[in-house]
Amino acid sequence: MTQLKGAVLIGQSGGPTSVINASALGCIETALKSDVVTRVYGAAHGIKGVLDDIIYDMNEEDPAELGLMRFTPSSVLGTCRYKLKDYKVDETDYKRILEIFRKYDIRYFFYNGGNDSMDTCNKISQFMAKNDYECRVMGIPKTIDNDLALTDHCPGFGSAAKYVATTCMEVYRDAKVYGTGSVTVVEVMGRNAGWLTAASAIATYKGMGPDLIYLPEVAFDLEQFISDIERVYNEKGDVLVAVSEGIVDKDGKYISELLASGEKSKDAFGHVQMGGLAANLANYANTKIKAKVRGLEFGIIQRCAAHLASETDVTEAYAAGAAAFKAAEAGETDKMVAFKRGAGAEYSCETVLVNLTEVANFEKKVPREWINEAGNGLLQPFIDYTLPLIQGESKVPMEDGVPRFATLKKIQAK
Amino acid sequence: MTQLKGAVLIGQSGGPTSVINASALGCIETALKSDVVTRVYGAAHGIKGVLDDIIYDMNEEDPAELGLMRFTPSSVLGTCRYKLKDYKVDETDYKRILEIFRKYDIRYFFYNGGNDSMDTCNKISQFMAKNDYECRVMGIPKTIDNDLALTDHCPGFGSAAKYVATTCMEVYRDAKVYGTGSVTVVEVMGRNAGWLTAASAIATYKGMGPDLIYLPEVAFDLEQFISDIERVYNEKGDVLVAVSEGIVDKDGKYISELLASGEKSKDAFGHVQMGGLAANLANYANTKIKAKVRGLEFGIIQRCAAHLASETDVTEAYAAGAAAFKAAEAGETDKMVAFKRGAGAEYSCETVLVNLTEVANFEKKVPREWINEAGNGLLQPFIDYTLPLIQGESKVPMEDGVPRFATLKKIQAK
Repeated sequence: MTQLKGAVLIGQSGGPTSVINASALGCIETALKSDVVTRVYGAAHGIKGVLDDIIYDMNEEDPAELGLMRFTPSSVLGTCRYKLKDYKVDETDYKRILEIFRKYDIRYFFYNGGNDSMDTCNKISQFMAKNDYECRVMGIPKTIDNDLALTDHCPGFGSAAKYVATTCMEVYRDAKVYGTGSVTVVEVMGRNAGWLTAASAIATYKGMGPDLIYLPEVAFDLEQFISDIERVYNEKGDVLVAVSEGIVDKDGKYISELLASGEKSKDAFGHVQMGGLAANLANYANTKIKAKVRGLEFGIIQRCAAHLASETDVTEAYAAGAAAFKAAEAGETDKMVAFKRGAGAEYSCETVLVNLTEVANFEKKVPREWINEAGNGLLQPFIDYTLPLIQGESKVPMEDGVPRFATLKKIQAK
Repeated sequence: MTQLKGAVLIGQSGGPTSVINASALGCIETALKSDVVTRVYGAAHGIKGVLDDIIYDMNEEDPAELGLMRFTPSSVLGTCRYKLKDYKVDETDYKRILEIFRKYDIRYFFYNGGNDSMDTCNKISQFMAKNDYECRVMGIPKTIDNDLALTDHCPGFGSAAKYVATTCMEVYRDAKVYGTGSVTVVEVMGRNAGWLTAASAIATYKGMGPDLIYLPEVAFDLEQFISDIERVYNEKGDVLVAVSEGIVDKDGKYISELLASGEKSKDAFGHVQMGGLAANLANYANTKIKAKVRGLEFGIIQRCAAHLASETDVTEAYAAGAAAFKAAEAGETDKMVAFKRGAGAEYSCETVLVNLTEVANFEKKVPREWINEAGNGLLQPFIDYTLPLIQGESKVPMEDGVPRFATLKKIQAK
């Protein structure tokens, strides 16, 4: 083990999840205990905070308040969607990052995010090496989309999946109460990979979930969709449908765009009404089926519903952050922490390291063989894969009947 | 006490809540234990099940499965929005109801619902009395809207309020993570009374809630709305707004209708169906303020999110159902169970009885003096009123990582 003394910097990037802060906390708390760490910093809004020199001093925070990060959704340090250029094309940003790293003696850099963040992480790691600045760079995975390669699953997915499954069960109960026939279309996040929409199949597995589930992994056909709905409607009277926001037709065109570019209604001010995919699909279904239709978007709630986080997810997210620091401390760099599922019948999971170059910018899809032949439902292997990830309820501390989330002091480092 | 032997019938009506089944269970379990009760029945889809003679035998249900109704959202017996005509105009439905009551020897009738349901209850009670059919009729209140008169609050409100407050806190955290300026408009249910939208003020009270809250109780002005948003945007960068679906302008016109084009559908009671207001308001704001805007509808999720039910609400909902049976058993009729809050500093609540004639079809609004002068926020009296109602977390049994809801056998009575 090569000992490297210096400061730690962690940044959060990409869309929020319920457990991104649990990962950051795992890294921060482990780093704060380490002998080689001189200071632990957090970047405001990810790499943007580095470029803008807005760096928070984590040593100044109350440890008890920091501890609440385990239960707090949506990047407490702030996040960004900033894409670094290739340093071979433009070194400006990288030089600035190096300058800031030198200023605070950053020797450990952790970036907590999804595909794009791993790419950022990878580029920074390469630039530091090229410039002989010794700094260990580690990626900590995070995404409700569950689409990162080389990891069994991603922190954030389990909690979002638990929310989607539970809410689908509740909506299923709600949609059926009138017994007068209805079509409810629920839209779930997932631009290119259908993992989270597929999680609605857990509700179906429990006997109260979507009758039809459409993912971006299978080409979506509007006529088939109508025929599917008609079949279920005639059989059951009430139809619950889950669609991924990113469903595409056989030519790869987003259905949301196809439906939105059709007949556009305008509001009183002449503005085009951009209904969501769920509402548009429900309205389209209504032109063919005379039933009460309803579109429902889970929207950003599904990615920040920490009140229903999966305890398994929270624990693993924390472990991923802790493992990232431990690995860097032990000399590793340019890696991402990944999860490896144990082979036994009982679920087990350990952290391993994978190369950032191999994980960056690659999207893992739901295997076709986990989706039924008709492309409108999930099969048992998906249930078996997902069930362990949603187990247990996060013990969010409550105060005044609502969750007690972390509020950091965010004292800027000088 | 006049002893009346016979069967009990309970029906559920109106929109679902998280605790409507807890009330039904309170009534059913108490009735099942009574010596004067020959049988306990449940009507399928409220009064429609009576008219259609679809009556379930509750004595046939497994008591343990019945017990899960405490945690199960959305009327397990099914609900309806069926409006009975005045019997002075048309007796058809009433004669049929009387026929069914005679068939099953129904001597206790409980109707679990909101304003319209109390009206139904009241009419049936009057008709039975007029026809010398001895039957005790009791209303059990239920509404997330909290707009029933003569009761401190309504079962269903506390749980929906807890969901709205918690979700607003989570959305607030989510909306601020990029730090690049944004306007998020959240639409909350409440057609004529703003109680549930006002519950978002609990999130504000906890330091992470809507900056602006608009209720139907105060005339909404689009120009003032823009000016309010601009002020907060310039001060804080990110703006979170909560609006009630039923906000109206100074002439009483729904803002949702002003902003939307096309025909609006109406439900069986002639109520205009709402929807799309959040997106339309966000888009309108975007014509004046160059920021990222987003509309978010809590939709039906807010009324069926039993996974986040208030323990206080669940307990009180059950107590209301039990009290309804106890009162009827003791000879009361044509009443609704209501809640009376204790006078002390510590919250306490007891059930009392009020006359159905006085409660039917009257809507209780949020007092103007609980809303700030500008009409865009709530004051401390509202917080003091609402906080006790959202306390405690319902202990929903979990199975496979998701709630274990009741599934009744629903064996039809002959």
